[in-house]
Amino acid sequence: MCWHLGAGPRGLYPAPMHLFSDNATPVCPNVMAAIAAADQADHGYDGDAWSARLDGAFSDLFGTPVRALWVTTGTAANSIALACLCPPYGGIFCHEESHIVVDECGAPGFYTHGATLMALPGEGAKLSPATLVERSKAIRPDVHQVPARAISITQATEYGLVYTPDEVAAIGRVARDRGLGLHMDGARFANAVASLDCHPGDVTWRAGVDILTFGCVKNGGMAGEALLFFGPQADARAAEAARWRKRGGHLLSKGRYLAAQILAMLEDDLWLNNARAANAAATALAQAVPTRLLHPVQANELFIRLSASEAASLRAQGFDFYDWGEGAARLVTNWAQDAASVRPLAEALKALP
Amino acid sequence: MCWHLGAGPRGLYPAPMHLFSDNATPVCPNVMAAIAAADQADHGYDGDAWSARLDGAFSDLFGTPVRALWVTTGTAANSIALACLCPPYGGIFCHEESHIVVDECGAPGFYTHGATLMALPGEGAKLSPATLVERSKAIRPDVHQVPARAISITQATEYGLVYTPDEVAAIGRVARDRGLGLHMDGARFANAVASLDCHPGDVTWRAGVDILTFGCVKNGGMAGEALLFFGPQADARAAEAARWRKRGGHLLSKGRYLAAQILAMLEDDLWLNNARAANAAATALAQAVPTRLLHPVQANELFIRLSASEAASLRAQGFDFYDWGEGAARLVTNWAQDAASVRPLAEALKALP
Amino acid sequence: MCWHLGAGPRGLYPAPMHLFSDNATPVCPNVMAAIAAADQADHGYDGDAWSARLDGAFSDLFGTPVRALWVTTGTAANSIALACLCPPYGGIFCHEESHIVVDECGAPGFYTHGATLMALPGEGAKLSPATLVERSKAIRPDVHQVPARAISITQATEYGLVYTPDEVAAIGRVARDRGLGLHMDGARFANAVASLDCHPGDVTWRAGVDILTFGCVKNGGMAGEALLFFGPQADARAAEAARWRKRGGHLLSKGRYLAAQILAMLEDDLWLNNARAANAAATALAQAVPTRLLHPVQANELFIRLSASEAASLRAQGFDFYDWGEGAARLVTNWAQDAASVRPLAEALKALP
Amino acid sequence: MCWHLGAGPRGLYPAPMHLFSDNATPVCPNVMAAIAAADQADHGYDGDAWSARLDGAFSDLFGTPVRALWVTTGTAANSIALACLCPPYGGIFCHEESHIVVDECGAPGFYTHGATLMALPGEGAKLSPATLVERSKAIRPDVHQVPARAISITQATEYGLVYTPDEVAAIGRVARDRGLGLHMDGARFANAVASLDCHPGDVTWRAGVDILTFGCVKNGGMAGEALLFFGPQADARAAEAARWRKRGGHLLSKGRYLAAQILAMLEDDLWLNNARAANAAATALAQAVPTRLLHPVQANELFIRLSASEAASLRAQGFDFYDWGEGAARLVTNWAQDAASVRPLAEALKALP
Repeated sequence: MCWHLGAGPRGLYPAPMHLFSDNATPVCPNVMAAIAAADQADHGYDGDAWSARLDGAFSDLFGTPVRALWVTTGTAANSIALACLCPPYGGIFCHEESHIVVDECGAPGFYTHGATLMALPGEGAKLSPATLVERSKAIRPDVHQVPARAISITQATEYGLVYTPDEVAAIGRVARDRGLGLHMDGARFANAVASLDCHPGDVTWRAGVDILTFGCVKNGGMAGEALLFFGPQADARAAEAARWRKRGGHLLSKGRYLAAQILAMLEDDLWLNNARAANAAATALAQAVPTRLLHPVQANELFIRLSASEAASLRAQGFDFYDWGEGAARLVTNWAQDAASVRPLAEALKALP
Repeated sequence: MCWHLGAGPRGLYPAPMHLFSDNATPVCPNVMAAIAAADQADHGYDGDAWSARLDGAFSDLFGTPVRALWVTTGTAANSIALACLCPPYGGIFCHEESHIVVDECGAPGFYTHGATLMALPGEGAKLSPATLVERSKAIRPDVHQVPARAISITQATEYGLVYTPDEVAAIGRVARDRGLGLHMDGARFANAVASLDCHPGDVTWRAGVDILTFGCVKNGGMAGEALLFFGPQADARAAEAARWRKRGGHLLSKGRYLAAQILAMLEDDLWLNNARAANAAATALAQAVPTRLLHPVQANELFIRLSASEAASLRAQGFDFYDWGEGAARLVTNWAQDAASVRPLAEALKALP
Repeated sequence: MCWHLGAGPRGLYPAPMHLFSDNATPVCPNVMAAIAAADQADHGYDGDAWSARLDGAFSDLFGTPVRALWVTTGTAANSIALACLCPPYGGIFCHEESHIVVDECGAPGFYTHGATLMALPGEGAKLSPATLVERSKAIRPDVHQVPARAISITQATEYGLVYTPDEVAAIGRVARDRGLGLHMDGARFANAVASLDCHPGDVTWRAGVDILTFGCVKNGGMAGEALLFFGPQADARAAEAARWRKRGGHLLSKGRYLAAQILAMLEDDLWLNNARAANAAATALAQAVPTRLLHPVQANELFIRLSASEAASLRAQGFDFYDWGEGAARLVTNWAQDAASVRPLAEALKALP
Repeated sequence: MCWHLGAGPRGLYPAPMHLFSDNATPVCPNVMAAIAAADQADHGYDGDAWSARLDGAFSDLFGTPVRALWVTTGTAANSIALACLCPPYGGIFCHEESHIVVDECGAPGFYTHGATLMALPGEGAKLSPATLVERSKAIRPDVHQVPARAISITQATEYGLVYTPDEVAAIGRVARDRGLGLHMDGARFANAVASLDCHPGDVTWRAGVDILTFGCVKNGGMAGEALLFFGPQADARAAEAARWRKRGGHLLSKGRYLAAQILAMLEDDLWLNNARAANAAATALAQAVPTRLLHPVQANELFIRLSASEAASLRAQGFDFYDWGEGAARLVTNWAQDAASVRPLAEALKALP
């Protein structure tokens, strides 16, 4: 449960160093340059030259044929993905603290026309195959109960944990065995892959993922995530998704500016390099406070024990972040930081009594 | 969680004495007579003489102005009620084992256009004011989170427990204080009122209930429940509900046959007498197996510890019912039974080793 | 456009002879007897013995494997059928005066989650293949425009006209060539088949119809229409429809009373005999006023020129019906009438100056 | 009906001078500069400093309190506006050739959960009060028919015509008298106001408009239209719209880049100056071919008679545009053009034999 609005003392903003969210960061210069380069006349919607390159660029990156659509936001991408996998009377297994459950104001219910989010527990916002199987077995195969039709997992999770390739594959097998579609919310997919140092295919299509929300905005983009479709149903689902994108009002008439941002992310591994920088910053902070960590730090988020007076002390020194309930705080590092740049905060954390 | 289909061994049906569900029972003779009496030409839909009498009949019964609509099923009645109380982006507090959560294939999500059922725990499928308040406070007042807009409680609950007037009133205060609508699923409302021996108003409008699903089918009807609207918004909500009834395909063209059934239920306290008979049967059975009870028996449902071999023994003697997971069984008594008629089963239960 | 509510002077009701609607008629005695015969304990929902016989009974009648579901109303049956044939972003070709367009308060939009009714003109509320092809060609094959996915025709039409087997087959070919599903609203299917004196398969599955709403209520039933699925996708669509039936709140817990009515309709050709009686009554009336007819009389509806004073004169003689705009009237005959029984009205019509 | 995709021969793109659509134009430099200036850290979603200024900026511009929300696209803005004005079972009067009817793949049906677009005819894609009243009167006030709840008009229309303040006010009176909400699709609102040379309030809130889609993208923006709410219900509707914006996936996490674009549009009358340039270009072209015009040219669109060979001749000279059915073409001028810059095309048009 993310207290991202209104929970922390704001004061003068921007703080000298803020760790509210990777959303609050400016746009990465390479992305801004790509936007400027795309500032030409071209056909509207996704009929432009940039949009036409997305399939190829992602197919190259993932080492398999991929169908790629730009979508304005992660919420829209997630919801459209789920609408492609689950009928209105179906259910979607997901974590009870996932973004689709707690932070999208029911958008998945809107796009799926009322499908049920079947919220499950799990340490660190991770789903386990055992939990999925157990819950699945409890559903009667009659018309009175909502049948499960999809699974949605988040990579990295809302608590900054990462599913290994084996872990995703184990969930992929549950999905395959039970005829469920598998969606991955990759708002911080880059951070996860950078952390795992694996091929992006290893935690997606090779592990049974059908649709991936490939996040860009938190990683240095302005607007625009990529919705990626893998496997034999990719074409049919992408065609369906293109309808939802239009019908949801997400088919921007000047789509080339979104496509250009996404392509820029893929060029020269910008997506990974940005994520590595953010991860390195988080690791540096984690090393400063090993005993305060509420979760292992595997990507770019830290959840730490922090009393109200400690939080106040840090804020007095110019560091800002969100409180996380009582006695805890969430710190999110971003692409514009690295281990060196967060050293002052690391020192301040160490210096806490 | 009701294993009402396929869970128990069926064998020859009907069994000499079945306690599967009050749904499986025939229609009460008075209701059948009312249907025959309504078999005349009249205006279609709800333009007939019987439908016109519903408001008055229920206003008399409840001692307050009531707007009443017949609806085909309890699922439709519940869903339409919730659609009147909650916008698509809102949430409805309800018990995690309530019928609307586990047995309606997402119908509330259909009629509300994707509102969220916020499932809460509670002993015996009852909601407590404390749980409601606590969950309510955990929702951030921003657009990212689904705001609660309604509460739905079941009277009697799925485990056959009954909310007292004070208990309903306490929930009614939570609803009023937080601006939430209050719906009562009264599929077994008659059994609850018969059990409480109170005025029907005491557990509804006087306690803050806005909309009541007044069940008839389990209590001897053929088809047709009444959807009742109380309070200053009754007219507006009933007008809205009439739209949903039509749009959902529930405005039967020969509605008089539904209205006649419901009116018959109210005549000479048939609804209460039928419920008293069913309750008495349940009480008689409960007294036979006081140490086996998983829940107090307050209406017409028993949940008892029962091993597989014990269940088999009872079935061999001609008594049938549903298993309730492993080592337990659910027995539902109905309007056509009473303490005397279930004596053979009571004896058989007592005789179990 | 049917002015079925509030348009005509009501006076004392029922009139000595009313022709408001076949909905206003009582239930046919055979159907009432079938309801009484079904008044036994049995499993709930559609787990009973009567419901189990529907597939077989309709397969026999149509001479092909049929999947059959009982549904409460024609509006629900039509809407569920369309939801099985058309995605939310698709369109359904239909007549601009069809029941689904003008008399269901948007129910098809509700069940399909917002599909578009593409209303087309056509004499006597009939669609022509040429109109369908022309409109179809005007749709751009891009994501900006709603793609047609289904056709819905009414048999007999809202003006009492009947599609011949050849006419249905011609529409069926348009559907097949363009990948559209074909639904037939058969609220008065019996009247059409009785009029055509053909095999029911000739105007349905042999002519390309995928789903038929087989009407019973206007033809002597109390509640309950049959939704029939033909062809290779019948099983998949029926399974989908069963979800919508439940989710829409139409899975009555005592479904046996609906199934029994429908089965009674099929026994000894009751459906055809009832329809023949109604048709004969309409024909007799039509023969009395050949020069007043606004449409040919092919089933059980007459639309006639009738001045306000003429209407008043007939009403004064005890005949009632709905006005149809200014200077016209609609007369609907029903199963309880025949040529002989409407003779007084025929005489009165002839006697008009 | 706009053949905006695939209808014209493409060849090398961009053509030396294209008039496909104002969507195909690059972003106006002032807007690009505003995006760069907003490239700072700030709170996410609409919690930033730019978003906070929208209400004030639009209130100043319109001379009345305005609630303003940025929305990603015109389709989303229109749909959200309609969802604020019309319930799912309601209807929206609109022109049969309006963008919401023919070019949004049913998005209004998606956001309104199935409301009916009641498409009406009208010269030049304009609605007349008489047509609205007449169609309104034909709706029976019963639950069987969809009740009208809103009117949507387009300013300038899809054929480049403009409603005068009096014309809007006349429609506003129809809306008020019948309790209908009034929405204006202002994708080209700037072109209309520039053409009328009136105060923007004269064709909106003073004339009865409740919600305005204030277009920016066609007028030089990159992404982002403003949704404006007027009148006593502005606050409540804006709060509702904020829910739909989030739930539809349109609450961009870096919303400041949208807000900054919109604010830039308002600065120093950029919106009007851009529109005046586009209008001047259209007027210059219209003066070159007065006898070919299919509609009066009042904003920035021309619809002209043009044979296939004439079209080919123009394209051979480097001018490109969309065909408009057979024998006609649509030319759309944009903010980056003016009377001088389109002179070569004007000459070429005049020189056609």
